Amino acid sequence: MSASVNSSSATVNKFLNGINDNYGGVVVQMNEPMDPQLFASLLKSSISHWRQQAKKGVWIKLPIELANLVEPAVKEGFWFHHAEPNYLMLVYWIPGGANTLPANASHRVGVGAFVMNGKREVLVVQENSGRFRGTGIWKFPTGVVDEGEDICVAAVREVKEETSIDTEFVEVLAFRQSHQSFFEKSDIFFLCMLRPLSFDIQKQESEIEAAEWMPLEEYAAQPYVQNQELLKYIVDICSAKVDTRGYHGFSPVPTTSAFSDKKHYFYLNSVDLKRH
Amino acid sequence: MSASVNSSSATVNKFLNGINDNYGGVVVQMNEPMDPQLFASLLKSSISHWRQQAKKGVWIKLPIELANLVEPAVKEGFWFHHAEPNYLMLVYWIPGGANTLPANASHRVGVGAFVMNGKREVLVVQENSGRFRGTGIWKFPTGVVDEGEDICVAAVREVKEETSIDTEFVEVLAFRQSHQSFFEKSDIFFLCMLRPLSFDIQKQESEIEAAEWMPLEEYAAQPYVQNQELLKYIVDICSAKVDTRGYHGFSPVPTTSAFSDKKHYFYLNSVDLKRH
Repeated sequence: MSASVNSSSATVNKFLNGINDNYGGVVVQMNEPMDPQLFASLLKSSISHWRQQAKKGVWIKLPIELANLVEPAVKEGFWFHHAEPNYLMLVYWIPGGANTLPANASHRVGVGAFVMNGKREVLVVQENSGRFRGTGIWKFPTGVVDEGEDICVAAVREVKEETSIDTEFVEVLAFRQSHQSFFEKSDIFFLCMLRPLSFDIQKQESEIEAAEWMPLEEYAAQPYVQNQELLKYIVDICSAKVDTRGYHGFSPVPTTSAFSDKKHYFYLNSVDLKRH
Repeated sequence: MSASVNSSSATVNKFLNGINDNYGGVVVQMNEPMDPQLFASLLKSSISHWRQQAKKGVWIKLPIELANLVEPAVKEGFWFHHAEPNYLMLVYWIPGGANTLPANASHRVGVGAFVMNGKREVLVVQENSGRFRGTGIWKFPTGVVDEGEDICVAAVREVKEETSIDTEFVEVLAFRQSHQSFFEKSDIFFLCMLRPLSFDIQKQESEIEAAEWMPLEEYAAQPYVQNQELLKYIVDICSAKVDTRGYHGFSPVPTTSAFSDKKHYFYLNSVDLKRH
């Protein structure tokens, strides 16, 4: 990706290597170190080249090792699109005017797990770090969905990690969207029901102070739960779910998308759909 | 936030101004330009100061105007946490070992709108840009949820923008989670039902080629819809929803969270919950 000498003509490349994307734009993936001044000069000539080609968005992916190229890119008019621990994505909009570039990721996704055994006891934990440390509050296992992880997989993983209980995913019972929950970002929390496949609890040492099977009524009677509108809704939903009259959430069905053969999950009210 | 001369003692500050966060960490918000060498030196002494104080995560928020400070921060061991167009957030973990820093946002959130009038006609559009350009495919209005926007607000906004139809949000009927849908990020698409409050269509000029009320059967008969597993599910759900036997999605109820008085929406199967 660096400027390279063409051995046949002995001339130096004047442009950065850009790969066309599907939206009339160009993606430059920088892999090798480059002198910042050379980079600035190549960037300038490349933009003018891409402008002649009527290109739209220009993306530059800079690995963190090339942090010295951030400043020259910004000086050429690039701005930040997103960053991951090991790279920064910069972007530039050639046509001028309002850009139609895709937005950065805006949400973190979390899961909470409602797991009930045959004795109407629910799996609860006490956390030994974060907001709940030392409060004695019993809560459902919760966690953050990993990058690229399915919600139904994340819920099973979190329960296993925190309590060693094996479970089978049943349904998403409800979800909450909240804003500015960390930095300026938003959060979607999925309340999930899981069916236990094992019953002997072994709590995780590092984050979990205690874990047990607790009667749902005892969980619900905690002042902390009684005082929170959201948690009261959650208790109502969980009670309705295990009641004979039932509550129907969204269950995952694997399906393919319109644009790829990748399998992904579509979550729907399968009980109501089957009735038709 | 820059190093400042203390007029009474005429000594220069040796540390960056850090504000303690709730997790044993420090947040440094850089506002004013600073010489990169001075920044590197202050960063070094600050880290050693924070280490003595047993601080954990160190966050540095750099506005894009201070892009010249990215390289010195990375040289001191910082890495990228996230970026928005106008700033980069860098982070460092003092204790060593695996860090427990919160993950970056991982998902973009989209909405699709099922809007049906009293004649069993559904609101559909043809897009004049992107993948669907020139295909003649009729589709439900769709869009991306803006930063900080509620799903139920975004669905109403997108329908209004694309067709000028006023609507009232009814339910989330289903949702799909997909991965690597843009860059390495994931996507959650919420299929929403909305009730029309007006009926005269005025299409958006820039992105919409055509918009109309179309019999649901005609929409469903499109080969494009027939050939896509996901779209067939969507048709089944929408048909079930308007059928007399019904399909129950998740409707939004405004509620407060455990940790703030901010209102947010909790989406649940209110029909099943009311029955209890």
